[in-house]
Amino acid sequence: MTATNRRAFLKTATAAGAGIILAPQISKAGVSKQKQNKSEVNIAFIGCGGRGRGHRKRAAMTEGVKITAFCDIDPEAIPKAQKVLKDQGHPEAEVYSDGEYAFKEMLKRDDIDGVIIATPWLWHTKMAVAAMKAGKYAAVEVSAANTMEECWDLVNTSEETGMPCMILENVNYRRDVMAVMNMVKQGIFGEVVHARCGYQHNLLGVLFQPKLKFGEGATGEARWRTQHSLKQNADVYPTHGLGPIAKMLDINRGNRFLYLTSTASKAVGIKDYIVEQGGEDHPYAKLPWKLGDVITSTIKTTNGETIIVTHDCYLPRPYSLGFRVDGTDGTTNFDMGTKRIYVEGVSKKYDQWEDFQKWQDKYDHPLWKKYGEQAEGSGHGGMDFFVTREFINAVKEQRQPVIDVYDAAAWSAVTPLSEASIAQGSAPQYFPDFTRGNWMKRKPIKFE
Amino acid sequence: MTATNRRAFLKTATAAGAGIILAPQISKAGVSKQKQNKSEVNIAFIGCGGRGRGHRKRAAMTEGVKITAFCDIDPEAIPKAQKVLKDQGHPEAEVYSDGEYAFKEMLKRDDIDGVIIATPWLWHTKMAVAAMKAGKYAAVEVSAANTMEECWDLVNTSEETGMPCMILENVNYRRDVMAVMNMVKQGIFGEVVHARCGYQHNLLGVLFQPKLKFGEGATGEARWRTQHSLKQNADVYPTHGLGPIAKMLDINRGNRFLYLTSTASKAVGIKDYIVEQGGEDHPYAKLPWKLGDVITSTIKTTNGETIIVTHDCYLPRPYSLGFRVDGTDGTTNFDMGTKRIYVEGVSKKYDQWEDFQKWQDKYDHPLWKKYGEQAEGSGHGGMDFFVTREFINAVKEQRQPVIDVYDAAAWSAVTPLSEASIAQGSAPQYFPDFTRGNWMKRKPIKFE
Repeated sequence: MTATNRRAFLKTATAAGAGIILAPQISKAGVSKQKQNKSEVNIAFIGCGGRGRGHRKRAAMTEGVKITAFCDIDPEAIPKAQKVLKDQGHPEAEVYSDGEYAFKEMLKRDDIDGVIIATPWLWHTKMAVAAMKAGKYAAVEVSAANTMEECWDLVNTSEETGMPCMILENVNYRRDVMAVMNMVKQGIFGEVVHARCGYQHNLLGVLFQPKLKFGEGATGEARWRTQHSLKQNADVYPTHGLGPIAKMLDINRGNRFLYLTSTASKAVGIKDYIVEQGGEDHPYAKLPWKLGDVITSTIKTTNGETIIVTHDCYLPRPYSLGFRVDGTDGTTNFDMGTKRIYVEGVSKKYDQWEDFQKWQDKYDHPLWKKYGEQAEGSGHGGMDFFVTREFINAVKEQRQPVIDVYDAAAWSAVTPLSEASIAQGSAPQYFPDFTRGNWMKRKPIKFE
Repeated sequence: MTATNRRAFLKTATAAGAGIILAPQISKAGVSKQKQNKSEVNIAFIGCGGRGRGHRKRAAMTEGVKITAFCDIDPEAIPKAQKVLKDQGHPEAEVYSDGEYAFKEMLKRDDIDGVIIATPWLWHTKMAVAAMKAGKYAAVEVSAANTMEECWDLVNTSEETGMPCMILENVNYRRDVMAVMNMVKQGIFGEVVHARCGYQHNLLGVLFQPKLKFGEGATGEARWRTQHSLKQNADVYPTHGLGPIAKMLDINRGNRFLYLTSTASKAVGIKDYIVEQGGEDHPYAKLPWKLGDVITSTIKTTNGETIIVTHDCYLPRPYSLGFRVDGTDGTTNFDMGTKRIYVEGVSKKYDQWEDFQKWQDKYDHPLWKKYGEQAEGSGHGGMDFFVTREFINAVKEQRQPVIDVYDAAAWSAVTPLSEASIAQGSAPQYFPDFTRGNWMKRKPIKFE
């Protein structure tokens, strides 16, 4: 089935009344019954910076993947991207670079099946929406959306077009994360009641590069990411921690995020850094940096679990996503530097942590057992391999990805909800039910 | 000055117009100007269970302490208490045991200077208030109060009578806690912006002893503590974690707890334990256990710091108070099992934790350097030595203790505030200003 045919099919399906409840019904099994697997798929790219290049390199290595087009408006990014293709034995691709909306031209092509989007945050949703409207599978980097309206844009567009949208949350595929998910699903911790996670990463060097530059004339993420710290007081980057915990707790599949409260500490870390690097009189030291150094959000789920999500990016703290999972039979902390576990009646000493490695080995996820060696050469310790692979497989198998548009919306919603809570003195904010009640019927899904 | 004379003095002072602002003015220096140190003080005890006996033993070992009376209504406790005295070369004391209000008889004695209260939680405030009204220095075990009205009872009574009330928070004197406090005060972490703490202690064995017994016919804390888990959904035991953090942040002395939100997880840990121990049909498995397994409270201070406080007592988790302190120049986790620190520009490797011990040695608190050897034989790794000592010294020196009635009220207030927040779907709850504005003028205090 060509892309044009697929669009025609989807229009028919919509016209026939499946309408907005189409997408929840397209389970992995559902779609593959209706559609045939594709042995070859064409993947396009919007954004060819560091992150986009990584995805492209991994896609180009995958059997049955063609790359005939990509889009970037940074002239420096284009030759680098072509070189990656060439080095991997692919022909050069057609480049779309004529202005910020060049991606729309690219999306008109009939030969593209899926699009991977790795651009600054404010472009994620509009590009994913355009991709879905053009009948392409959309994969979007984290976070998928910036506002509540954008969360709905993703969901509504996916339901209306029938096109899947995957949020490329690589941490869901971290080896220890998948082992713990495996343990959770096998009931090792009994009934899970509490979890912790977050993004604790000293970004001061990233936000000002080269030294004390941000915005125009800066490099990398300092060109656009720093602005969010100046203007927003919110957890602007919740999904690395929350994605894995959400999947462990079957969020949107029998469980749902119900509400959160968020509290911001004062914002003094960035100023402190600027003064250290540029002195008291540096003009940036006088800017009203708004994003609190530590944002603490506590989520309550409909099933009664609580989750603490932390955003902590402006203080000198060793990197950690600070994972913790607590249940009626045991608990684990798995964190850079400290991985430990205690399982009642199994751990040898009462009330004493034991080392995680033995458990890691025993509960290593089947995906890692199978592809671990292949994965380890790819980005971020191997997890990037799996996230790119799952998107490509979903396109090939014409099915919903394991991480779907409801995940993208619910996880990304923490940004606008935390902003509202902080602005209202930590008043609780309710999550919209992006599944429109279908979370009660939807079944847990396996990573495979 | 006898107790009677002191009461007369205080009445005069009150009548003279010092009234409710007397106590805030009685700084350590202030009182000792007006009153003479006592070389000998008489300390009485209400509650001679395990905790009370420990205090009595330490008091009896202290030079210049006489013990002529104690009160307990448990017939088994009395001979044990007398034996402790005898073993330490003291004469037997007079015992008050005639009913729940026997302590009121004891408080009529003129020879008592200070009273140490170690009874079930619901008696703490009424006994401390009675002690202060009788002109005695009051020391009360944690938490000091159960309701907001009780928090005010402590403050108002202390201000009206001029008698100090100390909350016996021993963790404020833990060796690593005091070293970190020392580091905070010396600016090692720069400007502190965030802290974490809590009480994570698997109490299932304590709450049901002997096996699956609580309430009447049970032993130890199972006689009364378990009831709180059945009836209340709140952080019922916040001070072990919060006391130390409050002192590091100068709460009530230039800073103040402003508000909190609290979120309770589902309550399934106790039921799970009962079923494990007694089977599905055990009658206790059907009781509506109310206190969530993990209570997460996030406090915001007037100075902009945030503090996460955890109550986690019904899950199989190794004991930990989960301390963490984050500032603009560094961070530390100090926890049973994991103690680590990172100080920017000092720690050798960028973004890498280093071991805590070197810092512990360097910033060991002067009190521990001086009394460490003596302390280590006493309870809870030495910290009990210091908390009993501070109360006795305050009585001897006729001054406010370093941990005072405003601390007792503000720390204990987390219980009713967390209960209200949980009941209102995590709505924020404002802390009363127990100092009536004086926190803005009150100066930080040193532990010495």
